Amino acid sequence: MDEYYMKKAIELAKKASFSGDVPIGALVVYQDLIIGQGYNQKEAKNNALYHAELQALNQAADYLKSWWLEDCCLYVTLEPCSMCAGALINTRISRLVYGAKNKRFGAVESSIQLLTGPASNHTLAVRSGVLEEECSSLLTDFFKKLRK
Amino acid sequence: MDEYYMKKAIELAKKASFSGDVPIGALVVYQDLIIGQGYNQKEAKNNALYHAELQALNQAADYLKSWWLEDCCLYVTLEPCSMCAGALINTRISRLVYGAKNKRFGAVESSIQLLTGPASNHTLAVRSGVLEEECSSLLTDFFKKLRK
Repeated sequence: MDEYYMKKAIELAKKASFSGDVPIGALVVYQDLIIGQGYNQKEAKNNALYHAELQALNQAADYLKSWWLEDCCLYVTLEPCSMCAGALINTRISRLVYGAKNKRFGAVESSIQLLTGPASNHTLAVRSGVLEEECSSLLTDFFKKLRK
Repeated sequence: MDEYYMKKAIELAKKASFSGDVPIGALVVYQDLIIGQGYNQKEAKNNALYHAELQALNQAADYLKSWWLEDCCLYVTLEPCSMCAGALINTRISRLVYGAKNKRFGAVESSIQLLTGPASNHTLAVRSGVLEEECSSLLTDFFKKLRK
């Protein structure tokens, strides 16, 4: 089931690249229902807060009419940055599934471990590496094209 | 001048408490102009992403039509959490001024030091303790009332 939702997140990521944005996609699932989705729109919106995760989390809160995203799972193609990992703590989401690692800025395991650090008061389940190669080659292909 | 803008942030914080939200206020200043402002609306909006800082940063990006908040300063009554400190990195804001320390969740100096850590690729000037007592008693008064 994780692979199914990650495929959907990859489809969202592809939308980002159409506007020249780094292809990252995310969605929130609650009781087998997608209740939030987003893709990176930093360039499209000229706003550094338009990360895929924040958009998906915003929609999920609107749908549930609750800031507490209990029993929800966020799927995202790339390991979240500090801002988005902090948002996962604040929303008390139950689970995170991501595809590729973000070696430079990943705030879950790669660069820092925000979710298990002293500034977190929330424990969530984490699974990484789901469709990792596909998520990762989306990014490398994008940057290859950009360089041309 | 920092004290002047912090006073304005305190006024915004007071708006938060009217809706039962923890009183925290923030604003973004660019060339002596307030181009973004916000106050904590987590309860009012039922959304944990409605921190004062994110709203102020969102408005600032809209105003400048740029994700890069160069030469901007964020004023906030309380030390930012991980999500908001991460947002400061992502927006490349030049300066942060805050009032009270957040001993439990502060991600600038108190709980963790996100801005100077390995997941940050941006250096910004930080000043803390501006109108600290006033910012702090806003919070203690709010929680005292809540307990009654």
